[in-house]
Amino acid sequence: MSLKILYEGKSKRVYVKNEDELVMEFKDDVTAMDGAIKASASGKGVLAARMSAYFFKVLEDNGIETHYIDYDGTRNITVKRLSIVPIEVIVRNYAYGSLLKRMPLYKSLQKLDPPLIEFHYKDDSLHDPLILPEDILNVGLLSRNELDYIVETTLRVNKVLDNIFSSKGLRFVDLKLEFGRDKNGRLIVADEISGDTFRVLDENGNHLDKEIFRKTKDVNIMVKAYIELCKRLGIEVKDVVSS
Amino acid sequence: MSLKILYEGKSKRVYVKNEDELVMEFKDDVTAMDGAIKASASGKGVLAARMSAYFFKVLEDNGIETHYIDYDGTRNITVKRLSIVPIEVIVRNYAYGSLLKRMPLYKSLQKLDPPLIEFHYKDDSLHDPLILPEDILNVGLLSRNELDYIVETTLRVNKVLDNIFSSKGLRFVDLKLEFGRDKNGRLIVADEISGDTFRVLDENGNHLDKEIFRKTKDVNIMVKAYIELCKRLGIEVKDVVSS
Ligand SMILES: Nc1ncnc2c1ncn2[C@@H]1O[C@H](COP(=O)(O)OP(=O)(O)OP(=O)(O)O)[C@@H](O)[C@H]1O
Ligand SMILES: Nc1ncnc2c1ncn2[C@@H]1O[C@H](COP(=O)(O)OP(=O)(O)OP(=O)(O)O)[C@@H](O)[C@H]1O
Ligand SMILES: [Mg+2]
Ligand SMILES: [Mg+2]
Repeated sequence: MSLKILYEGKSKRVYVKNEDELVMEFKDDVTAMDGAIKASASGKGVLAARMSAYFFKVLEDNGIETHYIDYDGTRNITVKRLSIVPIEVIVRNYAYGSLLKRMPLYKSLQKLDPPLIEFHYKDDSLHDPLILPEDILNVGLLSRNELDYIVETTLRVNKVLDNIFSSKGLRFVDLKLEFGRDKNGRLIVADEISGDTFRVLDENGNHLDKEIFRKTKDVNIMVKAYIELCKRLGIEVKDVVSS
Repeated sequence: MSLKILYEGKSKRVYVKNEDELVMEFKDDVTAMDGAIKASASGKGVLAARMSAYFFKVLEDNGIETHYIDYDGTRNITVKRLSIVPIEVIVRNYAYGSLLKRMPLYKSLQKLDPPLIEFHYKDDSLHDPLILPEDILNVGLLSRNELDYIVETTLRVNKVLDNIFSSKGLRFVDLKLEFGRDKNGRLIVADEISGDTFRVLDENGNHLDKEIFRKTKDVNIMVKAYIELCKRLGIEVKDVVSS
């Protein structure tokens, strides 16, 4: 790409398109366990980009503001340039993953109703620690109104995705969101929404998400699961090469 | 002691006195960093016992129910036998310790007003992880009413101790409490309240608590700090031998 690179992360490169717009390039890389396990597979990037574009459009159709601007079917999505709030917002419909680690009294896949919302401070060196809503207010990362808006928006996003997954016979386990501020200070859903950032199970309890890579360490099995998920969602995948 | 031992922990032995009563024996041991650093000093046990008995009596005088039954000036306190809720309740008046680790945007000793309450699941192998109030409810460790009662009681305890420390020119940083249920299911303040479980600073910012052991790894300096703290509180220490 001829654009100036702004940031290279574990799964995406971010380029500056103009003052207000960025291009997110989805790499074919997958990492797990804090980057300890790495792999790469052709098709992975474009699949994550397609899922993200699909979900961002659905959210926009449901009146939820996202950073999505444009998508042409490649591994690149054009998005609004935001100032990212360094917080991961996780919403959980079933107990899984790090939740079972910090509180082993949960039953695996125990239903969480109402959905559980948690916040993690985005800091790889600290392993994205769980923080309290009060921490966010005390250090001034968000105002009370902003925090309330993020909780409310996250629950709305969760509901929209839950309806979609349910209608395809899938079980929606959990989702990670990031938010950023535009130049007017408005909070907007950012980053990506894909098998890398949510967990979803098919009728047989198989993961159609990155968990399958954490479990099998086989990136090709994961790409097949992503293709299966895209097919269920009606996302075009005929042109995606998988090994 | 001729009583049957029920439990030996890092800093106390617990004996069965009768069906309803236990004796907590405060050992001279100190540990820090998940037990990685250990030391022992004569005087430490009796000082922690005296402080605990002192604070439990003050709390009872303020209408807060504790497990305290009787104390004779030794290293042993007689307490009500409870079923301990495996949660550490921490109340923080100033940002310090693990709070700065999970959220480095706090300024060290930043004032927290209102006090910050947090819950950790008591599990040494997991390093007593931070959990959310919702986790406690979801797994059924406490009912909503019980959780509210614990928050309210913790804030009351915090206020009582803050008044005492302030009146002695000390800064009350934070405190860890444990609660247990008696045979009627009533929640009662349990365990200990000493320099091992709170942090308190003198006029010069010196710790009169276990933090001084974490910093210096010198248990004798810590015992001197505990003696100084007891003197300030009007707790008898003339008979305590320190090296
Ligand atoms: N609209 C946006 N404006 C600015 N930055 C964004 C936007 N959307 C996402 N980002 C950021 O771009 C980066 C995407 O890269 P990637 O997700 O690969 O990073 P990462 O390795 O996961 O590290 P990080 O912990 O920062 O997410 C992230 O830091 C993300 O927060
Ligand atoms: N009134 C009580 N009834 C029953 N158990 C109690 C009571 N008060 C305190 N305890 C428990 O007695 C034990 C005291 O031992 P100690 O504090 O040395 O343990 P520890 O090594 O810190 O381990 P733990 O993580 O269990 O506290 C603790 O497990 C504490 O929860
Ligand atoms: Mg990322
Ligand atoms: Mg203990």
